[in-house]
This record gives sequence, C-alpha cells and structure tokens, in this order.
Amino acid sequence: MQIPDIVVGRLPHYLRALQQMSQKGQVVTSSKELGERLGISAAQIRKDLSQFGEFGKQGTGYQIEFLIKQLRAILKVDRVWDVAVVGAGDVGHALARYQGFANRGFRVAMVFDSDLQKIGQPIGEFVVQDIANLNAMIQEANIKIAMLAVPGTVAQQVTDELVKAGVQSILNYAPVNIIVPPSVHVQHIDPSIHLQRMAYYLK
Amino acid sequence: MQIPDIVVGRLPHYLRALQQMSQKGQVVTSSKELGERLGISAAQIRKDLSQFGEFGKQGTGYQIEFLIKQLRAILKVDRVWDVAVVGAGDVGHALARYQGFANRGFRVAMVFDSDLQKIGQPIGEFVVQDIANLNAMIQEANIKIAMLAVPGTVAQQVTDELVKAGVQSILNYAPVNIIVPPSVHVQHIDPSIHLQRMAYYLK
Repeated sequence: MQIPDIVVGRLPHYLRALQQMSQKGQVVTSSKELGERLGISAAQIRKDLSQFGEFGKQGTGYQIEFLIKQLRAILKVDRVWDVAVVGAGDVGHALARYQGFANRGFRVAMVFDSDLQKIGQPIGEFVVQDIANLNAMIQEANIKIAMLAVPGTVAQQVTDELVKAGVQSILNYAPVNIIVPPSVHVQHIDPSIHLQRMAYYLK
Repeated sequence: MQIPDIVVGRLPHYLRALQQMSQKGQVVTSSKELGERLGISAAQIRKDLSQFGEFGKQGTGYQIEFLIKQLRAILKVDRVWDVAVVGAGDVGHALARYQGFANRGFRVAMVFDSDLQKIGQPIGEFVVQDIANLNAMIQEANIKIAMLAVPGTVAQQVTDELVKAGVQSILNYAPVNIIVPPSVHVQHIDPSIHLQRMAYYLK
C-alpha cells in the first residue's frame, strides 16, 4: 500500500511532539492532546496512524515510548544517517554546527566548499573539504543525504554531482528550484517563501 | 471568497519561478512550463491563478512581468516588510546576514538576544539588541513579522512576548511547536522534520 506523501509529511511532526512529551516524563497521550498541540484534528491523527498499524487502544490513548519507537522505524530514523553539507557560507556553517540533529536520526559527516579560502578551514568539528572531491568522498562514505547551501547560480550543477554520487535526499537551501530524477527526493527551505505565505494574511 | 491556505502556499513558489525567468530575460511563460519547473500540474496552476483573476490568455500564456506584479500584490510583498530576528546564535546570525530577502518583500530590521556577551555586538550591519527591549522596539517600529531562532526551552515565552508586541507572522526555527492566538500565523523551519520526511523513502 502506498502512503500519500502528505501523510508521510505529518509523521515527523507527530514524532517531534511525542519526543518532547517523553522528555518531560509524560507516558501516555491521546490523539486529542497531540492534535491540540499540532493544530491538526484528532480524527486526522488517528486516521494517519491507523494506516501503519494499531498503535493505541480506544479510551486508553497512545503509549508514548511505544509510538515513538514505531514512528522512528516507519520513518527509518531508528538509525543515524550521515549527511553531507555542501556550501560553507553562513547557512552551511549554521548547519554544520546545528545541535538539533542529535536524536532525530541524522549526523553531519562532512562539509564541502569550492572556495580556496574556506577549504581546509575548521567549522565546528569539521574541516571544509574541496568540492572537487565530493563525488569520491560521498560514494566512499555511502552518504545518501545532502543539505545544499550553495549560491543559486551553481545549485543545479552541484545537485547533478550529488545525484551522480548516489545521493537520494536533498534538502535545498539555495533559493532556486532544482531538477532531479524521480528517484531522488527534494525538500526546500527558503525563508522568503514561508514569509510570503504568511504576508498574505497580514493586516 | 476565502482562498484555501494550500493555494496561498503555492503562490510564493510561482512568484519565485517567475522572478527567476524574468531575471534571465524571459517575457512569456505557460502553465505547462511553470508546472514542469515546479513539479505541479499545469491544470493546478491554471486553477490556482484563476481564483485571483484572469492573468493569461488561452494559447498565448502569461506575461511574466504582469503576473509577477499581480502575485506580489496578492501576497502583499509589493512593499518591504521589516522583520525582527530573535536569537543571535548561528541561525540568527545566518538570517541577519542572509542576502535572499532582497526583492522578495522583506528586510531584517533588528536582531535581539538575551546573552550579555552578544548584546551590543555587531552582526552584519546590525547591533544585537537586548531582548528586554523587544516589546518596546517592535511596537515602536510597528514590526509585524519575526523570525524566531532561540533555544526550544524559551521559544514559547519569547513567542508570547512577540504576540503581545503585535507580531502577526512568526517564522519559527526553534525545534518545538509554539502556540499562538488564531490571529497569528506560524510557519516552522526544522531541517530534521524535512530530512525525516525524505528518510521514509530512502533505500
């Protein structure tokens, strides 16, 4: 059974909320509580989760630790994926030092740039690698995920390199659309896009 | 007529693609070309745009400059909105220096932090302001938009302050959900959420 991508897209939000409840020592939750926290209806949450199995009992709610374990397995983040950061500007810098990947299933493993001033310099615990070695290093380390933080002008060219190296997921911070084969997934982070969507509602 | 938020959410993507076409000197486009570029069906694009007016002619496509002008007006980004950045860590730093807001309708106007080591220090063209002055400075400058780049532990508290100061749109980089009144819009940027959504598809 193929799960709609929009459902897949909500699971990380459920997981994040559950992990936060768990960190506060909470043991059980309900679709109602989760829904209020996330601004999603309780019925939607029950329906989404029921696509993957029977995770709660009518009237007793969800065991948080159990549901976390299930969701991590479904999302394949019950392991740690190495991630390559491409581009060592401000955004790449922030990503390489970001503490928010721990316990979410990801670890930055290497950082690349093409700028001779940056190659060989430290960023957090990394040394910036020459983008000329991107293909070899990514294949060698069997990396499947990249975060793209290069200027828009070279984003497509670097994307093509990443795809050639076997990358299957790209989180694109460059403010341009990138074209990939159907087997590769792309998500975009462009703060202007989010701000514009909200500006529509400004009074 | 109320436009569904999911339609509003696609308009910034149309606008970004059109602006990129325009920058390359292109004058006319079609829903087919836009669709191929964005991975959205041509029919969907025509339907979305038709909710706001008659922007193209059957068979002759869309005049890019005209459609850009219309979309900027619809999204209320035919002006420049001042934005407050709260939190001067790596992410706040990257946002304060980000060049991607120019020509998209936004301008960072001030940066706040609570850390005495950071207050008074320069970030790009800004001096970090004391978060104790957040309410007064945001009201004084009539700022309606904030980007929240503080630790998760204080995100809700800072959000409450922003709402009290009159902020209507919050772009939340803190890795927690924040609760706001119905009149306030929130969008979240959490790279782990995006990476997890794509991890589901990894082979």
